[in-house]
Amino acid sequence: MSDIRVGVIGATGAVGREMLSLIQERRFPAREVRVFASERSAGMTIPFAGGDLIVEVPSEEVFGDLDLALFSAGGRVSRAFARAASRAGCMVVDNSSAFRMEDDVPLVVPEINAAALDGHRNLVANPNCTTIVNALAVAPLHDAFRLRRMVVASYQAASGAGAAGLAELMGGTRGHLEGDESPPEVFAAPLPFNVVPQIGAVGEDGGTDEEAKMGTETRKILGVPDLEVVCTCVRVPVARAHGVASTLWFERPVDMKRARAALDQAPGIRWHDLPTPRAASARDEVLVGRLRAVPFDERALTLFAVGDQVRKGAALNALQIAERLIADR
Amino acid sequence: MSDIRVGVIGATGAVGREMLSLIQERRFPAREVRVFASERSAGMTIPFAGGDLIVEVPSEEVFGDLDLALFSAGGRVSRAFARAASRAGCMVVDNSSAFRMEDDVPLVVPEINAAALDGHRNLVANPNCTTIVNALAVAPLHDAFRLRRMVVASYQAASGAGAAGLAELMGGTRGHLEGDESPPEVFAAPLPFNVVPQIGAVGEDGGTDEEAKMGTETRKILGVPDLEVVCTCVRVPVARAHGVASTLWFERPVDMKRARAALDQAPGIRWHDLPTPRAASARDEVLVGRLRAVPFDERALTLFAVGDQVRKGAALNALQIAERLIADR
Repeated sequence: MSDIRVGVIGATGAVGREMLSLIQERRFPAREVRVFASERSAGMTIPFAGGDLIVEVPSEEVFGDLDLALFSAGGRVSRAFARAASRAGCMVVDNSSAFRMEDDVPLVVPEINAAALDGHRNLVANPNCTTIVNALAVAPLHDAFRLRRMVVASYQAASGAGAAGLAELMGGTRGHLEGDESPPEVFAAPLPFNVVPQIGAVGEDGGTDEEAKMGTETRKILGVPDLEVVCTCVRVPVARAHGVASTLWFERPVDMKRARAALDQAPGIRWHDLPTPRAASARDEVLVGRLRAVPFDERALTLFAVGDQVRKGAALNALQIAERLIADR
Repeated sequence: MSDIRVGVIGATGAVGREMLSLIQERRFPAREVRVFASERSAGMTIPFAGGDLIVEVPSEEVFGDLDLALFSAGGRVSRAFARAASRAGCMVVDNSSAFRMEDDVPLVVPEINAAALDGHRNLVANPNCTTIVNALAVAPLHDAFRLRRMVVASYQAASGAGAAGLAELMGGTRGHLEGDESPPEVFAAPLPFNVVPQIGAVGEDGGTDEEAKMGTETRKILGVPDLEVVCTCVRVPVARAHGVASTLWFERPVDMKRARAALDQAPGIRWHDLPTPRAASARDEVLVGRLRAVPFDERALTLFAVGDQVRKGAALNALQIAERLIADR
């Protein structure tokens, strides 16, 4: 099993670094690890397993020498290399949104729909981070009562916009406390001591891409093509971990004791009376709490969930997919 | 008209101070202004209109010498004095939750239900701050399409928990940046760089008082006794102004152009493409934006609204009620 040659594409980013750390932490059976990033970072070294890895620039040829490629360098890089890599026999787990809705690409949260990996063609997509956090809380309830509709409001951390987003929050907060405001560059409005109810550009229907993903991706992961989804994505001045207030309607009447038991037994989540981003940071599990019945409607319930979007929302989920792929080889 | 003797009860708090500032700013026709607070603050002076007011301790007798009492000193003080004051002929606007659901006490947002003041008995209640912000955005849409159900997730500022809440956020943020964490006292979890999805104590049904108010008070204000409400109240690391992501279902199909026109024409609110707490701070209007249709459901829409909860959510609304009361005398 320890014969896997792994490439991490986008290794200098927050998710890439988390992947490298998880490869060690989870004793991923890698014989060789190579790291890739843009021209700008070529030749840089990244500490790994007591040594140093030298950052390379990806090219089509390189994937013939890799068994597994973990892409987290944005849609453009994925579109340039991921299909060719998978055709060359390299298993690809792609963290971008480039292929998530393609029919021949499984979109997988292993605790929920690992079965979708059957018959994969060496290219698997990792879902959007907020979608993963929400889906892990929702899936066991869907199994129990059959989900029909959900209304989600998110509380998304600054690091969801990468290292630049986190720096803008932390630097901007220091500045604000010293009376020195600077205009936002990463976010649509200043994030320190504020919330910004718009993530990405607003489309013609008034929604953002980030909000659309919650619908399209959740439908594919749960296999409910007509699932009704309303989602509002809001950036909050939090360093790490995304939260969701999620209200759910089901086909069947909800038994609250059974709902709680389903959450307690489900993999990848953990009950928490007061699930906060800081409690969820650097944890593998999504924390779920504030579970309540909905007055007037026996087919509905509401809950709050929060998960580390760099970890389970991205790097960990991708690595768990990779673990399944190599176990099935 | 300038014969009104006004008492501000709870004058040393954030809402009390805002009331004093609005009395001047709005040229409220006060002949005399007296300020009241607890024993602890007795004898303190509060600057007002170029002079100083001396803080008194309220007693039942004092209200015989006042025409209007603005209570914002918490439910205990309101329960102790408000009924007696109104019987003594003093008009009372109470910002606590003590009397909001009493049948003989109008619960008023003047832009929405000023008519509820007809036949008042000298005691009028000011709604919960988050409820006011949400109701101002919802009311014109209710008028157009008849509201049936709403799902609300809130983004509530630290100052909603008073000066101590704001101090815990600002001091805690400085501490966090310097690597010096202190345990929370006001909030249920640390608020700096976090969100806390619980405001107040959790009851037997899993909900908090703050969440229950959104249902009970909105039903009374809009006059829709069977309105279905799901609400999750979340504290966010913001100094001032509460936000709501609000998804609404109506009896009638929604025409989105008409919905937008209704919002544009309604008093007390203002359209804003990106309504944030910092944009709404120190403003009279509630900002409303992110209006979107709901796919799958022609009877639903979703929006984001944010308003200064010290101002329109408390002090301004109370003063607007008082202005109506004295105009009707």
